[in-house]
Amino acid sequence: MLKSGARIGILGGGQLGRMLAMDAARLGFDVHIFTPEDNSPAARVAAACTVAPYDDLDAVARFAAGVDVVTYEFENVPVETARKAGEHAALRPGVKALEVCQDRVTEKRFVNEAGIETTPWRAVSSADEAEAAIEALGTPAILKTRRMGYDGKGQQVIRKPSDAVAAFEALGGVACILEAFAPFTREVSVVAARSLDGQIEAYPLAENHHEGGILRTSIAPAPGADVLAGEALRIASAILEGLDYVGVLAVELFVLDDGRLWVNEIAPRVHNTGHWTMDACAVSQFEQHIRAIAGWPLGEPSPHSAARMDNLIGDDVARWQALASEPGVCLHLYGKGEAREGRKMGHVNRLSPLS
Amino acid sequence: MLKSGARIGILGGGQLGRMLAMDAARLGFDVHIFTPEDNSPAARVAAACTVAPYDDLDAVARFAAGVDVVTYEFENVPVETARKAGEHAALRPGVKALEVCQDRVTEKRFVNEAGIETTPWRAVSSADEAEAAIEALGTPAILKTRRMGYDGKGQQVIRKPSDAVAAFEALGGVACILEAFAPFTREVSVVAARSLDGQIEAYPLAENHHEGGILRTSIAPAPGADVLAGEALRIASAILEGLDYVGVLAVELFVLDDGRLWVNEIAPRVHNTGHWTMDACAVSQFEQHIRAIAGWPLGEPSPHSAARMDNLIGDDVARWQALASEPGVCLHLYGKGEAREGRKMGHVNRLSPLS
Repeated sequence: MLKSGARIGILGGGQLGRMLAMDAARLGFDVHIFTPEDNSPAARVAAACTVAPYDDLDAVARFAAGVDVVTYEFENVPVETARKAGEHAALRPGVKALEVCQDRVTEKRFVNEAGIETTPWRAVSSADEAEAAIEALGTPAILKTRRMGYDGKGQQVIRKPSDAVAAFEALGGVACILEAFAPFTREVSVVAARSLDGQIEAYPLAENHHEGGILRTSIAPAPGADVLAGEALRIASAILEGLDYVGVLAVELFVLDDGRLWVNEIAPRVHNTGHWTMDACAVSQFEQHIRAIAGWPLGEPSPHSAARMDNLIGDDVARWQALASEPGVCLHLYGKGEAREGRKMGHVNRLSPLS
Repeated sequence: MLKSGARIGILGGGQLGRMLAMDAARLGFDVHIFTPEDNSPAARVAAACTVAPYDDLDAVARFAAGVDVVTYEFENVPVETARKAGEHAALRPGVKALEVCQDRVTEKRFVNEAGIETTPWRAVSSADEAEAAIEALGTPAILKTRRMGYDGKGQQVIRKPSDAVAAFEALGGVACILEAFAPFTREVSVVAARSLDGQIEAYPLAENHHEGGILRTSIAPAPGADVLAGEALRIASAILEGLDYVGVLAVELFVLDDGRLWVNEIAPRVHNTGHWTMDACAVSQFEQHIRAIAGWPLGEPSPHSAARMDNLIGDDVARWQALASEPGVCLHLYGKGEAREGRKMGHVNRLSPLS
């Protein structure tokens, strides 16, 4: 167990790193951020920051040598960066989670091989394969780049077979995955953690609502969460163990008509659909991640309250004065300068008694 | 109203500054700490830090000129330091609160003149005055230095009149106050805030238990808090308005047999007996203070849970592994190096449903 006062390194300087850093500090840890970004959200609450490109492996090595454990706050940290950090400090979670989750095809294959269902899918690396995949899966379907997509970016909906080639070309002709539309009634997510000695804990499921590919709202515990909890925990546990994972991870799930759960996506990190835990649980997802990578026992994930989380996206943040005046609102602003369209600027949690 | 992204300066680098800085960051503010201490707890979570003595008024002026508002985290910031900061930025709370609260005699006089009861007291500046004061107030009584006392330091209990001179000499012959023993049944505190436009909000009373002059435990809401709430709010409001105060302030109160409240002490700052609000309220005392000094509306102070706060003092912090394993414990460690006797190293909050 790392003692209070130990140094935690975080690859990435965004709001997830910021919230990780604040909860690490609350446990008495010193945080060192590594990010290519000047004046990043996370650096402004951390004890130290290295600003350097991810491919400056000498800088990465020096950064890692100065801390007791390294973690990452987003799944697109280059594998070579993480690997280099891991040569100089414990890297938790490890490289495998990045390798699996940075490529949608690798991720789907990993999930299916673990005996967990996903929507039907095909790898697509040419226009011909796009046509063949549409023939196999039918329409509508979604063509996604295998790498670097987030918040609905790098995706094309295909509504009729003749659109397949145009969609592939619109994504730049890069390696893609075609996913059948999942016949889901709603989307939920499970945020779960695995400790250094293999203990697993999961928060209650959140029900998630997206707009334009971006998470807008999470309700937690999700209505009917109890019925789904066992299967969600089985899925999360298989993924955590399959990745030999240490830390917090989120699994986005489709709930089908018959109550089955299909994995939509794995996020090998703290997750926007877990932000409700910051105010509704004794131990938030951020503290839980820090506990795991520090070798601590996991916190008990039962909430003391129910919560509704709403993201403040782009201009939403202009409503901050009204939100600050609303009784019972827990306001979280990320300290980002410009409220660009689609940019996550903050979120609010509203608590209510558990039913 | 200061916008998210504005810069907040804090005089003082201890754990109160650290917790203020973290809640300021959660609202998107950048924090700049001014402290004479290298590697202070607050600096390690702040965007910037100036390390300089409080009497380096040039450094104070530069610090204040670089932020949008200045506040302080402890009441023994030299008045000249605060005054200099106030020449270059808004200073909230103002100098008056420091002037009144740095001297126990000035503070008692201020409170009594506001029509609020305290224990009977006498100013004592010589051995003769010590004897006369004991004759007037009787024994037992407590002789305290007028200035710079905290956590039970700078105090002598006088049990018989013949001890008066020795007690005065034991305190170094400095200006003192003699306070009669208050016939109290318990100690409570009210943590209250006043906004820039005069709105006042108070958290429910906490019941406080001390050992060796140091706060050990707070229970909130205090049993029977509702009965005392009106009078406590009247007292807090009179003090807040009398000091033309902006920010959070705590008033320690003796509860007498007949339910009357006597003011024991004012702390012109966030307060250890308000730490329970960090986990039991949507808006903690730290956020409340930041809201007030930023010109925001105050948050609604109703808790969603009841709480018991226990300080981790000195070696208590060695129990951190057991505390980290206890379900439902909210653990706060201040990142201080050495667990010296009497040093506040952290605290824990345990929540329970409101009764």
